[in-house]
Amino acid sequence: MATDTIEKKPKNLDGKLKNTKMVYTFKAKGAEGKADMKNLLGGKGANLAEMCNLGIPVPPGFTISTDVCSYYYENNNKLPEELKEQVLDALKNIEKEMGRKFGDPKNPLLLSVRSGARRSMPGMMDTVLNLGINDEIAESMAKLNKNNRLAWDSYRRFVQMYGDVVLGLRPVARTDSDPFEEIIEHKKYQRGIQSDIELNTSDLKDLVTDFKKAIQLRTGNVFPQDPMEQLWGAIRAVFESWNNDRAKKYRALNGIPDEWGTAVNVQTMVYGNMGNDSATGVAFTRNPSTGENHFYGEYLLNAQGEDVVAGVRTPQSINRFGKKNEQDVTLEVRMPEAYDQLMQIREKLEQHYKDMQDIEFTIEKGKLWMLQTRNGKRTAAAALRIAVEMVDDGMIDEKEALKRIQPEQLDQLLHPSFDPKAQKEQIATGLPASPGAATGRVVFHADDAEEWTEKGEKVILVRIETSPEDIGGMNAAQGILTARGGMTSHAAVVARGMGKCCVAGCSAIHISYHDKLFKVGDHLIKEGDYISLDGTTGEVYLGSIATIAPQISGNFKKLMSWADKIRKMSVRTNADSGKDARLAREFGAEGIGLCRTEHMFFEEDRIDAVREMIMAEDKAGRQEALDKILPMQIKDFMEIFEAMDGYPVTIRSLDPPLHEFLPNRHELFEELVSLKMKLKNLNDLKEIDKVLSRIRKLEKIREKVENMTEFNPMLGLRGCRLGIMYPELTAMQARAIFEAACQCKRHGIDAKPEIMVPLITSVAELDNQKDVIRKTAQEVMDKHVMDVPYLIGTMIELPSAAIRAREIAKSAEFFSFGTNDLTQTTLGLSRDDSGKFLPEYVKKGIFEADPFQVLDQKGVGELVKTAVEAGRKTNKKIKLGICGEHGGDPKSVTFFGEVGLDYVSCSPYRVPIARLAAAQAQL
Amino acid sequence: MATDTIEKKPKNLDGKLKNTKMVYTFKAKGAEGKADMKNLLGGKGANLAEMCNLGIPVPPGFTISTDVCSYYYENNNKLPEELKEQVLDALKNIEKEMGRKFGDPKNPLLLSVRSGARRSMPGMMDTVLNLGINDEIAESMAKLNKNNRLAWDSYRRFVQMYGDVVLGLRPVARTDSDPFEEIIEHKKYQRGIQSDIELNTSDLKDLVTDFKKAIQLRTGNVFPQDPMEQLWGAIRAVFESWNNDRAKKYRALNGIPDEWGTAVNVQTMVYGNMGNDSATGVAFTRNPSTGENHFYGEYLLNAQGEDVVAGVRTPQSINRFGKKNEQDVTLEVRMPEAYDQLMQIREKLEQHYKDMQDIEFTIEKGKLWMLQTRNGKRTAAAALRIAVEMVDDGMIDEKEALKRIQPEQLDQLLHPSFDPKAQKEQIATGLPASPGAATGRVVFHADDAEEWTEKGEKVILVRIETSPEDIGGMNAAQGILTARGGMTSHAAVVARGMGKCCVAGCSAIHISYHDKLFKVGDHLIKEGDYISLDGTTGEVYLGSIATIAPQISGNFKKLMSWADKIRKMSVRTNADSGKDARLAREFGAEGIGLCRTEHMFFEEDRIDAVREMIMAEDKAGRQEALDKILPMQIKDFMEIFEAMDGYPVTIRSLDPPLHEFLPNRHELFEELVSLKMKLKNLNDLKEIDKVLSRIRKLEKIREKVENMTEFNPMLGLRGCRLGIMYPELTAMQARAIFEAACQCKRHGIDAKPEIMVPLITSVAELDNQKDVIRKTAQEVMDKHVMDVPYLIGTMIELPSAAIRAREIAKSAEFFSFGTNDLTQTTLGLSRDDSGKFLPEYVKKGIFEADPFQVLDQKGVGELVKTAVEAGRKTNKKIKLGICGEHGGDPKSVTFFGEVGLDYVSCSPYRVPIARLAAAQAQL
Repeated sequence: MATDTIEKKPKNLDGKLKNTKMVYTFKAKGAEGKADMKNLLGGKGANLAEMCNLGIPVPPGFTISTDVCSYYYENNNKLPEELKEQVLDALKNIEKEMGRKFGDPKNPLLLSVRSGARRSMPGMMDTVLNLGINDEIAESMAKLNKNNRLAWDSYRRFVQMYGDVVLGLRPVARTDSDPFEEIIEHKKYQRGIQSDIELNTSDLKDLVTDFKKAIQLRTGNVFPQDPMEQLWGAIRAVFESWNNDRAKKYRALNGIPDEWGTAVNVQTMVYGNMGNDSATGVAFTRNPSTGENHFYGEYLLNAQGEDVVAGVRTPQSINRFGKKNEQDVTLEVRMPEAYDQLMQIREKLEQHYKDMQDIEFTIEKGKLWMLQTRNGKRTAAAALRIAVEMVDDGMIDEKEALKRIQPEQLDQLLHPSFDPKAQKEQIATGLPASPGAATGRVVFHADDAEEWTEKGEKVILVRIETSPEDIGGMNAAQGILTARGGMTSHAAVVARGMGKCCVAGCSAIHISYHDKLFKVGDHLIKEGDYISLDGTTGEVYLGSIATIAPQISGNFKKLMSWADKIRKMSVRTNADSGKDARLAREFGAEGIGLCRTEHMFFEEDRIDAVREMIMAEDKAGRQEALDKILPMQIKDFMEIFEAMDGYPVTIRSLDPPLHEFLPNRHELFEELVSLKMKLKNLNDLKEIDKVLSRIRKLEKIREKVENMTEFNPMLGLRGCRLGIMYPELTAMQARAIFEAACQCKRHGIDAKPEIMVPLITSVAELDNQKDVIRKTAQEVMDKHVMDVPYLIGTMIELPSAAIRAREIAKSAEFFSFGTNDLTQTTLGLSRDDSGKFLPEYVKKGIFEADPFQVLDQKGVGELVKTAVEAGRKTNKKIKLGICGEHGGDPKSVTFFGEVGLDYVSCSPYRVPIARLAAAQAQL
Repeated sequence: MATDTIEKKPKNLDGKLKNTKMVYTFKAKGAEGKADMKNLLGGKGANLAEMCNLGIPVPPGFTISTDVCSYYYENNNKLPEELKEQVLDALKNIEKEMGRKFGDPKNPLLLSVRSGARRSMPGMMDTVLNLGINDEIAESMAKLNKNNRLAWDSYRRFVQMYGDVVLGLRPVARTDSDPFEEIIEHKKYQRGIQSDIELNTSDLKDLVTDFKKAIQLRTGNVFPQDPMEQLWGAIRAVFESWNNDRAKKYRALNGIPDEWGTAVNVQTMVYGNMGNDSATGVAFTRNPSTGENHFYGEYLLNAQGEDVVAGVRTPQSINRFGKKNEQDVTLEVRMPEAYDQLMQIREKLEQHYKDMQDIEFTIEKGKLWMLQTRNGKRTAAAALRIAVEMVDDGMIDEKEALKRIQPEQLDQLLHPSFDPKAQKEQIATGLPASPGAATGRVVFHADDAEEWTEKGEKVILVRIETSPEDIGGMNAAQGILTARGGMTSHAAVVARGMGKCCVAGCSAIHISYHDKLFKVGDHLIKEGDYISLDGTTGEVYLGSIATIAPQISGNFKKLMSWADKIRKMSVRTNADSGKDARLAREFGAEGIGLCRTEHMFFEEDRIDAVREMIMAEDKAGRQEALDKILPMQIKDFMEIFEAMDGYPVTIRSLDPPLHEFLPNRHELFEELVSLKMKLKNLNDLKEIDKVLSRIRKLEKIREKVENMTEFNPMLGLRGCRLGIMYPELTAMQARAIFEAACQCKRHGIDAKPEIMVPLITSVAELDNQKDVIRKTAQEVMDKHVMDVPYLIGTMIELPSAAIRAREIAKSAEFFSFGTNDLTQTTLGLSRDDSGKFLPEYVKKGIFEADPFQVLDQKGVGELVKTAVEAGRKTNKKIKLGICGEHGGDPKSVTFFGEVGLDYVSCSPYRVPIARLAAAQAQL
């Protein structure tokens, strides 16, 4: 007997559940639970109770609390003794309410047994429907309802479901077919019919018998005829399903703690398949896709809920708004009374929950029953529209509206996306390096990308990794796909800056530049073939897929203005050009938090001068090259100051290792080898001389490249170390900044430079560079007879700088936390290399999330806190900000708000996200 | 008048020197100063005073304090008003003592004016001798002394010295000849003579006249006839010389603060050149080279001190111990009375100072005068012998003896060194990567090193950088020279492990493997040419230089035993093989603090299996390769356990990125290209198939190498990340450790494994690996029915781990601070790449020292402290140690003692250094 599983004396009964209410009933006249008891009753149970309390018709039932689930697992899978009595009491309550009796063939009450966790885990756990039938009851039901087929089909469905979920007859290997379906197929074959609907009552009876036999034969379990044994078996099975593999995996992926447990909802069965006066459906109180304030849903006539899910028949719209075909008959038309009732319930639920609801309903012989309500999932656009319209309608206030939007979601609104209706064949997944969707023909070289684009083709640039020389091609391409590199590889950073779709570090693709193709799994993709990239998810698809352009409605602006009213941190942008700066201003940036001068160095018109500077043998040679770069830098800064007129512009002095500006080491080597090989086969003296001269030139460059190559460039000669080794470099940049600022001022533009020294370990490096900058600034301002107010500050991006922040704050006018590098050094983790093991680290729970996307608060965050406290204590006037990638991550922004930063800075496209997140940090 | 320089009202007179004693006299009956007033009187002045106090004959004089020097520089190069009176008083004192009068032609007193800083800065500052002569006094002296030549020669020397030092007539450019020497040369040419000695009194008189003319003509300064003006000029000049270029450079190099300033010593002149009853000399109270307890020194008859320095005549030994030739006449024989007096003074000084003294003396007409005493510089061997013998003689106690030895010095005793008498031509300087001296013929390939060595040649292996494949050749070579890589590059680490001389990162040399030569400056060194390396200094010399073997005397052991009695920290070693472990035991290591298993992986007999493991497509393939490595690892560990019988052995699981074990990317490419070229010329089908198959294999390896290449391997897939990605790797290593331990136990060897998980960021990684290790350990011990006690701990080598030490200490049984990586990550500084800018950083004072040699206490040290405190607080039983390179650095060891570590660990050759440093940390 299954009830034996309720132990008389559980081994570890800690007394917690003794004399505790474990079962909560709900019925027409009210419920013992309510909506805010989700932790105890699960989301489904709490909302069923709430609907009862609102007087909405819900099939009566009861919920077994999540505490029982915890008890179950803490006590070697035993149920508490007292549960039995409470369940029996609750059952009596239902029987009384429905005027039927569980297990009574003359007037049987059938039940559904469903899971229901604190947070929805759709389809992960088990459900048993039609529980409470046995041979005798089935016979009797057929007579009572005058519907043989319904009775036996219900019984057949129950045995099948119970046999699978509770008694364990299911496919062993993934490739096995379902044992019950096999039996059904066999019966159809015997009968020479095609569809399940053609099975008659006799067939269904046979199937019940065959199912029971198969269960006993293959699992050794006898199908229980006792409805009470059925009930306890199902309750246990639902608790068990909390720990099945897919549920555990889902929890791990969605950050749901194992300790929460599930509740069990036992509820009267209602039938939408009792004839043409019956139906079942699901609906949203508003359009979940657009947010329009229209009731929106689908129904199936004469069907059970599972039929909607199974997709055997095509559901129809409940009303005119969702109608697809002229000939469809909506619920509104077919059952106007039930539809009216639904509309009232819709109104009641929205007014009550103050949010768009996702509901399930069944109409049994004309009577409407509500089976579920919960806050509905929605697209970003819908979320925005619903929130703003609810404020307009006075349902919620602005703060509540701000809370309703996931900042991350806004990203969808700022980039193109794939048409959700399009068919897609996924071939690989990389890192979602830069959001958006792109479709185009594959090219493997930046030059090709430019050429093809000029000819009017849309292309996707596919590279093993990108380098500064590819920038033109990247700009021309619709999207970029790389086989190597992380979220902050060259490709990723540049693409995000351009707002261009990019999937990076897609290690499954194997590229041959030589043959102009790449392999991925069994697919061979050649130059010119179409592929599509989703930069928001990192997915790569075969062929061309239609994209839809971003739509930014007036609601967006409205919401942003509310956010701006509330937030305390200001939001700046990371922008390296006038173009980016203007874009960021449109997105609401209040200044530049990080202007990376190195991106200017990569520009085509100056890379030669930059290389000349690097190749210079001495200071004089370097100075000569720097003199060529100076006017270009002045122009860059003027454009930026103009775009940011009146707003602060934080400019970081040159940061990357200089060898990044030189040609690739391996490509040089390969070219040299092939030139030398060529030389062997040459006879023409002139030709030989030509090749020899080229070899000599390359050898010289190669010597420099080899000489400058670093084992760990991230920890090498970069940041302020460059400026300390070559003060003339810092001086040139300072000169460009102040020349630009003075010239801008002459034109009435208010330039507010804030100069930032990168990669210091202590105040000594800052002071060294400060001297150079101050001296140059004074020279330029004296020359122009002008005064440009400016600040000099530093990045805090090394643990040492955070630890020694107190002494640094004495000299720095601002700190900007470079959380990218601070994460790299604190965790000893290279952004570009960690792609190989980070997913495994997250999967195993060693890291809660990718620390380059979400700030690691326990390690890196501690250093940020330390430095903030030390900085504020030492220098009351210090400005504190953050310019790492985390400036655009909502969770991290909340943290920065908590520790008291003055601003965050992020890429232009993430400015709105940061504005919202900064507002939420205040709520 | 020079006295005008004493300002009546100095601008910034802060009152500090008002009413302050600035001048301290010393004379036969005692002095106003004493030995412990070095800060005020400088080393020379304090010791002159002390000798007077001891009743030792010192020419009377006075010292102007260093405070006056500070005042001078703080007040725009003015001397304090009150100084004049104090100097005049002191001068009167000398006159009274000597019975002569300064500036009195009838009985003139001549003076020397010398610098004297707190710490000796030999030859860096200026000196004026024979001061107080003018035309009239010279004439009169000649008559009084009945020695025309001496009088005029003294005057000539004075005008020359004063003209240079005070009046500024000196060579302008380095290449100019000395203006005074030019005049002398001209005079000798006129007179047709060769040597200075042939100049007669008349010539000397002419020279004085010519000198004075030249000074006036070329500098505009008139040579002052007033002795008092001469004196003030000389005092000012000595103060000025504190800030001349060479003094400033010397201070920067030797860490002497600019603020210290110099004192000025004004002292009665005595003459060692008054005839054959006069002499001058320098001596050490014991042999400074060997430490033997013999008086040891040289003298010149009838000469002045500067003649000894000038090297015009060869000095002779003062006694039989230093006698070089039979015909030499020692001072002992020539002037037995003076010698006896010297012997008594020697005794007195040693008894007083309790240390070996370096003295200067002059004998004027039979009377002995002491001019200087100070603690003598000595070799490491001498330091050791002197300290131990002084303890034996009861002069000092053991603690004092321990303080007398610089731990760093011991290094000299543990490696061969160049014969100090050998001639050397230096051609380059690299990093002193592994100490010792080596001479041999240049080879450029590891294979050649082995071949040549087998043929009986001694070779130096010269490489751009070394790789694991070079180990055989490195072992065969006498020494290793690399053009690239830092103090912890592969070459450096392996060489130190082998105790082999290595100069690394010598960027001045340009190697062509193809032509088998390297260029450095104007030198072209070909294969087979001799060079010599000093791994202790990083110097590279041309040709072959004789080396001398290390001599470890019984004194060494004695001193070590005293150190062991006092120190509280234990000293372990970093050793990766049985051989190293045995060596370290001999040096007194009390266990292994770091056994790097990766060096075992590089061994020739297993690199193939290691590569097989890396190339494996799946877990099964990896396991197969690991099974091959297992028995070899067992053998490795058994040898180590045996050598460390009863002592703990800390074994770190595999740490480096796996691609380090794969062939070089470039070499692979080169081979591939040449194979493809070869293919073109082949006709034989079989041959073609063979080459094709080789190409396919190489392509596959190359693909893997490309795939595994990392941008920043230091921050990539390494450390525990390997074990987390491939648990079978950790399991194999754990299996090898416990198999070895059990088998050792069966043979009566007490194995004490401590397993160390590297590169964790939080406790999660440790726990993950602990599970694998514990499980494997139990399996092996169950199999052997044995119990091996062991610990599992972790490296703290990332800032994150230090910050989160509290939670880690709950799970770890020990912490070992990996200060190499902790320095790299805390400072964002790659050991292998920082060679390019670290020297500049140290020179500019941004770093106090190379942070990879001396622990950066303010940044890295803070993290160590944080983790130590958190660790001890959470886990009372936790063991704390350090296994970075800093474990062998005395300054760092002191720090580790202060923060309370239980042990330090260092390379075998540094164990004695660490033992001494750990003892000094207690003193």
